[in-house]
Order: sequence, then C-alpha cells, then structure tokens
Amino acid sequence: MWRVTLLGTGGTMPLKNRWLSSCLLSYNGHSILVDCGEGTQIALKWAEQKAKPIDTICFTHFHADHISGLPGFLLTLGNEGRTDPLTIIGPVGAERYVKALCLIAPNLPFDICVHEVTSDDTVHQAESITIRPFRVRHGVPCLGYSFTLPRAGQFDCEKARLNGVPLRIWSHLQHHGAIDYESRHYTPDMVLGPPRKGLKVTFTTDTRPVENIVRFAADSDLFICEGMFGEEDKRDRALDTYHMLYTEAAQMAQRAKVRRLWLTHFSPSMPDPEEFLPLAAAIFPAAECGFDGKSIDLAYETI
Amino acid sequence: MWRVTLLGTGGTMPLKNRWLSSCLLSYNGHSILVDCGEGTQIALKWAEQKAKPIDTICFTHFHADHISGLPGFLLTLGNEGRTDPLTIIGPVGAERYVKALCLIAPNLPFDICVHEVTSDDTVHQAESITIRPFRVRHGVPCLGYSFTLPRAGQFDCEKARLNGVPLRIWSHLQHHGAIDYESRHYTPDMVLGPPRKGLKVTFTTDTRPVENIVRFAADSDLFICEGMFGEEDKRDRALDTYHMLYTEAAQMAQRAKVRRLWLTHFSPSMPDPEEFLPLAAAIFPAAECGFDGKSIDLAYETI
Repeated sequence: MWRVTLLGTGGTMPLKNRWLSSCLLSYNGHSILVDCGEGTQIALKWAEQKAKPIDTICFTHFHADHISGLPGFLLTLGNEGRTDPLTIIGPVGAERYVKALCLIAPNLPFDICVHEVTSDDTVHQAESITIRPFRVRHGVPCLGYSFTLPRAGQFDCEKARLNGVPLRIWSHLQHHGAIDYESRHYTPDMVLGPPRKGLKVTFTTDTRPVENIVRFAADSDLFICEGMFGEEDKRDRALDTYHMLYTEAAQMAQRAKVRRLWLTHFSPSMPDPEEFLPLAAAIFPAAECGFDGKSIDLAYETI
Repeated sequence: MWRVTLLGTGGTMPLKNRWLSSCLLSYNGHSILVDCGEGTQIALKWAEQKAKPIDTICFTHFHADHISGLPGFLLTLGNEGRTDPLTIIGPVGAERYVKALCLIAPNLPFDICVHEVTSDDTVHQAESITIRPFRVRHGVPCLGYSFTLPRAGQFDCEKARLNGVPLRIWSHLQHHGAIDYESRHYTPDMVLGPPRKGLKVTFTTDTRPVENIVRFAADSDLFICEGMFGEEDKRDRALDTYHMLYTEAAQMAQRAKVRRLWLTHFSPSMPDPEEFLPLAAAIFPAAECGFDGKSIDLAYETI
C-alpha cells in the first residue's frame, strides 16, 4: 500500500485553514516529502504523520510558499531523533537555498545531501520508489516529479524448473533478490514472469501546461497538478504568473491518460476550490479538488 | 488605547493549536511585532489583524522558533500593499539573518532598515512608542524589550495665561506640539502640567532570570515573560537550556513591581500551561497564562 497525503494545498499565501504547498508519499515505513511550505511541520501533525520517516524532500522550486517551512521541519526532524542522512532534491540553486535557510537550523543531528537536478534524465531512488524530476515552465527554474513503485512479475514454477532453480531458494529469489547457492548465481528473473504494472504518482505545481508534463505524467495512477485558478476569466493572470487554470490541468490529465487528477495549490483568492470543479470535470471526469489532509492508499491492480 | 495581542505562545516547536513566538503591539493605526516564528502570518489572520500596519519588528534572537516566519510575513506584507519602509531591530547578527532569509523573499515593494543592538542604551522610536532593548541571558545573544507610551501633562489654563499664550493656539499646543504664531515660538510645556504616568509593556523570552529584566521591566503595566517550564522539577532543564520556570518568572514580576504578568513561550512538553499556573500565582497573584490570540487594551489611568 502506497499512501499519498496532501499536507498543504495553498499557493502564494496560507489561509486560516489552508496550509502552503506540501505532499507526503509514504511506503513501507519510509516517506518522501514534496515541497515544504511554511507550517508543514504543523500540517504533518494535523495529518497524524511523523517527520522522522522522511528520507527525501523533493522541491519543485524555491519560492517561499514551497520552502519556507524547511528550517522548522529540519529542527523537528532532529527533535524526533533522526540521525540517518536526509536527501534533498531540487532545481539548480538548491544548495544555496538550503544553506541559507539552515543558518537558523544549525547543528542538526543528521547530514543533508543536496542534489541539484540539471536535466530530465536524472533518476533518484528512495527505497523502493524511483523519482524522476522533469522540467516545467514557471518564472524560475521549476521541476515536476513522477514517482514510480515497480511491481515484480508473478512467480512462475515452470520457469523456475526450466532454469534448474533448486526449490529451496525459490522464495528467496521471489522476495529477496539474487543469491549464490551451491556455487551457482541465481537471479529473480529465473523464477519470475515479466514485471507487472506498478504504481505511479506525478506531482507538478507552479507551471504553465507543457508537453513535459504529459510525457512524465503518462499513465499515472494519481496526477497531482496545480489548479491555481478555477475561473476561466483568470487566464491572463495564469499566463502572467506562470500558473494554470483548472481546465488546463484537466486537459493535461486527459492527454496523459492518468487514472485520477487531484487539483492543488489554490489561489488565496479562491476560498472554495470546489466551486469551479465542474469546469475541470467536464474535461476530465475523474478530477477532484485536493484539501489539506486528503489521503489515498494506492494498491496494485489485482493479479 | 494600546492593544497587545499574543499571536503565538509556543516555544521550540509548534503544536497543532499553538503557534510559535510572536506578539503584536498596536497603537493608533501602527503596530510593532515582537518575534516572527513560523506561522506568524497565519496567526495574524486568526487574531483578525493585518500585517500592513506593522512598521517595526523586534527580534529577541535568531533561533528558528522566533524568526522562521519572517520570509512569509514579508511577502504577505508586500501583498497587503505596504510600500513604507520596515524597521527590524535585533541582536548583533540581525543583518546577516535577515539577508539569508530574504533569499526566498526577494523583490519586496518596501525597504528594510535593520538595526543591530549593541548596548542597553539604544533607544528606538516607533511612532509614539519608545522601544528599549535590553540584554538577557540565553545560549546566543538575546534581547528583551520594554515599550513605553508617554502621556503628556494635563492642560493648565493658568500656566497658559501666565506664559502669555494666545487662546487661539491652546488646542494646537496641547494636541499637535510646538508652533510659531505672530513671530513668537510656543511649546507644549507652556500650557501643560508635568507629564503623567504613561503605559509600559515589557517582553522577554528565552532567558534565565537576570537583573536586567527587573531593571527594564520595573513598573510595567504588562510584563510578558517566558514560562518555558511549569514543573519545578524541570529546574535543571531550565538551567541547561537557558530558560525559566514559572516560579522564576513570577519572582521577576514581583521584584519589578509590574501590574500583571503573562506567561508565554511554553514548552511543547506542556500541553496545558494552566496546569502549573498556581505555582506562579502563589508568588505573584496577578500572573496569567498567555494563549494564542490573548489580547488586552491598555488604557491610561483615570486623571
């Protein structure tokens, strides 16, 4: 089970009851945080999640509403007892921004490894999850992220027998990977069928609609996309500020053939994001508005 | 009327329902903010206060729970339309901390003037309020602040007549200050009695009890003082972390002969600060626990 939780769904400015941009992906006792706007450490408490299992933070970009919660989050991570290193991924400049903010979060009990993404071909691994950052179009360098959880093939007895794999190591090969046994090297593909469809989550915010989003979000089980403006008459404002209308997000979802779309990063001028949802749903019926604390457990398809 | 509002009363880490350190002093359409912990811009909304009238921020020190809300606050201040300069007062290092955090709050529509306090003799003026920073004892350079609102003397007709002040400018001298009239210079003291008792508020947090607090808080109408730990058995922890027990804050209040004491900056280990209030009240009966949004309108004494 792969749990995805929207911690904060506000863009630009927080509201009394809307935290700034942040999303948590949790799998098998490990978590990835996407963005860390002001208040993220409190939003985590509201979502009843701990900071400590977070191994990786992926920053879309370094506008304050996406990163200002970092110092407080890091200190809380330390207070929760983390000593394992933390990985931070972000656009070029990440090192400088993290260093500046760490001036008020000194003496942390864990190391921070910062990776600046310079091309779409960069792939990161966080436990079982593969992270693929991709470039989007905002006023500053900005990244979207696709996260995939692969799924191995089904166990194939016949294949195991044909490959002469001793019965004794079948379970090991299926569940724990390659093994040397009685002077021979065995690999999982000797007992498994072709990989099955895994799970995919794509997150993008603070961007105009661009082809890279369609490409990287393709076939996602969950596509979390900014919907800064619901009203169609905000098109000029969306263009000026490099943001999207609901309908533009819905078009991306439709073209990428995703399973479901969650809108997020709502303008503070929009107190009720649900008001304009029908505009998105008319284009992509499986569109939903995100809200702080909204969560889903993604499971593999049966078989 | 001088309104004082505690925006956040949490120390170290915020709780689900407790913001980090911040306090607002508002008089005559202008405000002073003391500290700006993470979430201060949201705490302002909860207290139904605007950021725009804030002319001055006084930082006690630069631990994250006191300054991490600065970038978000500055951006919101800009969004609210402030163009007048903002003054920031803090211990030595202020310039460096503000500069580092402004990396994620660039292009503000107002100037920031930073004043680093190097001695207790520094006095600042924010409209009618006189600000006196004073050194306290924490693990890093840390300041307390006393704020005073002076009150002019009563209007004295006899004095005005004796000084030969024309009737026509009596009101101007009383309410608007000095004036040149018919080739002669007139000053308010020509029509006013001796200055009357004004109002005084003192704020100090993140410190051990020190004599400077008693000296600068003397005769305050409101003394806001940290009470990091309620339990007496946390004395060693208070010593180690340079904080105070409730009873130590109460002793400061008693010795400084203040009118009322509000405890603040509560440890996250203390979910109900009221639980230990009787320990403080036994020493200083006019002790109260602060809470987010707690507010008082201070008025001059009658006469």
